[in-house]
Amino acid sequence: MQPYKDLIEARIEAWCKRLPTQQLYAPMAYLLKLPAKRVRPIAALMACELFGGKAEDALDEALGIELFHNFTLMHDDIMDASPLRRGDPTVHVKWNVNTAILSGDALLVKSFELMGRDAAVRALFNRYALEVCEGQQHDMDFERRTDVTATEYMEMIRLKTAVLLSCALQVGALIAGASDGDRQRIGRFGEQLGLAFQLRDDLLDAFGDPMETGKQRGGDLRAGKKTWLLIRGLEHERADGTSVLSDQIALAPAQRDVHRMGEAMERLGARSDAEAEVSALECSAFEALDSIGVNDERKAALHALATTLMGRRS
Amino acid sequence: MQPYKDLIEARIEAWCKRLPTQQLYAPMAYLLKLPAKRVRPIAALMACELFGGKAEDALDEALGIELFHNFTLMHDDIMDASPLRRGDPTVHVKWNVNTAILSGDALLVKSFELMGRDAAVRALFNRYALEVCEGQQHDMDFERRTDVTATEYMEMIRLKTAVLLSCALQVGALIAGASDGDRQRIGRFGEQLGLAFQLRDDLLDAFGDPMETGKQRGGDLRAGKKTWLLIRGLEHERADGTSVLSDQIALAPAQRDVHRMGEAMERLGARSDAEAEVSALECSAFEALDSIGVNDERKAALHALATTLMGRRS
Repeated sequence: MQPYKDLIEARIEAWCKRLPTQQLYAPMAYLLKLPAKRVRPIAALMACELFGGKAEDALDEALGIELFHNFTLMHDDIMDASPLRRGDPTVHVKWNVNTAILSGDALLVKSFELMGRDAAVRALFNRYALEVCEGQQHDMDFERRTDVTATEYMEMIRLKTAVLLSCALQVGALIAGASDGDRQRIGRFGEQLGLAFQLRDDLLDAFGDPMETGKQRGGDLRAGKKTWLLIRGLEHERADGTSVLSDQIALAPAQRDVHRMGEAMERLGARSDAEAEVSALECSAFEALDSIGVNDERKAALHALATTLMGRRS
Repeated sequence: MQPYKDLIEARIEAWCKRLPTQQLYAPMAYLLKLPAKRVRPIAALMACELFGGKAEDALDEALGIELFHNFTLMHDDIMDASPLRRGDPTVHVKWNVNTAILSGDALLVKSFELMGRDAAVRALFNRYALEVCEGQQHDMDFERRTDVTATEYMEMIRLKTAVLLSCALQVGALIAGASDGDRQRIGRFGEQLGLAFQLRDDLLDAFGDPMETGKQRGGDLRAGKKTWLLIRGLEHERADGTSVLSDQIALAPAQRDVHRMGEAMERLGARSDAEAEVSALECSAFEALDSIGVNDERKAALHALATTLMGRRS
């Protein structure tokens, strides 16, 4: 994993160094240089190698995907009013909202610049970029709704999070000249892995260690986000006649007791439901990877990436 | 002019009709359907014909430029906290800020989708799209500075406004297969015309008829925008020892008397300075158009477009 990460980090470093010294560009470099796992660009490089290409061949597009991801972070943090990103101030807090809007816009332009070389890559990226926006729209809509189903929630995180990992892998595959079937299989691997990753993220938000996650525990719960966990918990409550979660949700954000909400979800079995769902998604991701007609040694890197993501504590 | 506008309007209408019925897309259709002059896409079609292409050949890219322009309007209106756009509520007022951010992002993605067909067009568009963001950044910076020069102001409006008209014309020229020299000349025409247009816009803000412009008079002045007019006015004041403008600028926005500010700029000669600058830019635009080696009949449409823009009252 480290060699891929080193490639990405060096490319990001070089890219940031060449940015003009205007205020428009400083937030880009700031956000890109915060510690990050670089899962998506690493996945793009690995997929390129999986199908016989060289990692370096996909480096521009891998960077493009990481820029796009950072654009979504910059704008989503405004929309979600998040003060911190992994323990550091978000761009709209460190600068201001207008700067975060505009610098994010410019970052989106920059990402398109890097995704433009190949027509098939372009078409794929355009489609998924739009789906990511649709996912964020659903996410915001869900905050105002009380009738969101678990299925709707999964579709929202598929769009908001999973498709970009899927896109990264497919882009790597396209650059290596993979068949259409193989591109779809590696895409499926990414989508299922991305869903598992995000569902685990919701679990970490509610039950993770803030020292390890770098985020305050229960941020989503306090914000009234209808996570899969919460939706499941509310379903269980309707069945057993208790009302800890629904009472808490009825309160203003500042009044909510996120510790009690977490306890209730554990007692109701929502936590174990979510953990079971994560396992099923991970299993389906591995099946998709296994179905690709390339020898297993070539798959080792992606296997390792998936295992790391699945075992992650932050 | 009307046949070009009809082509564009029909293309926009068809594009809006095919949008999914989600909240993400409704603000795009709303903003795109507000009455607009469609100067940039019309210019793209005209430039394509000027160099021997068919207007229809450039219709996708013309739409792409109009989408990009509308993306900038949606986000700039948030940043400038503008409640109205040509008399109608802005997207962030009609919906909310988050919707305007996200729908604008998706509109930017959509514009790239349409600009992707040709490598040269793509490269040009990427470059100018970034310059437009740089221009908006300067514009915001200028609101906090007291030492902006007239030269800096012109460079800001060049980036924020003029380059997109220049880009539209160059894209039309590229699609028609114009030479590099001719592409640069038509680009220069657009840039000078765009600067003239924007400077006239500042004049209209300060001295135009709100019934015709659809905007409250003096909106820029009240917001403390360092327009070319205001910068010139302050320079004149420093020379003659009066202080109407600098006293007004020192007040809070709600306390400013924009009528008095307008009178002062007229008395100081700033208004006539701006009008002279507009004339010089228009002259230079026509020179660039004249220098293109195509017979005059072919230039008639762009001549007419320029004349309409120059004579406009709104």
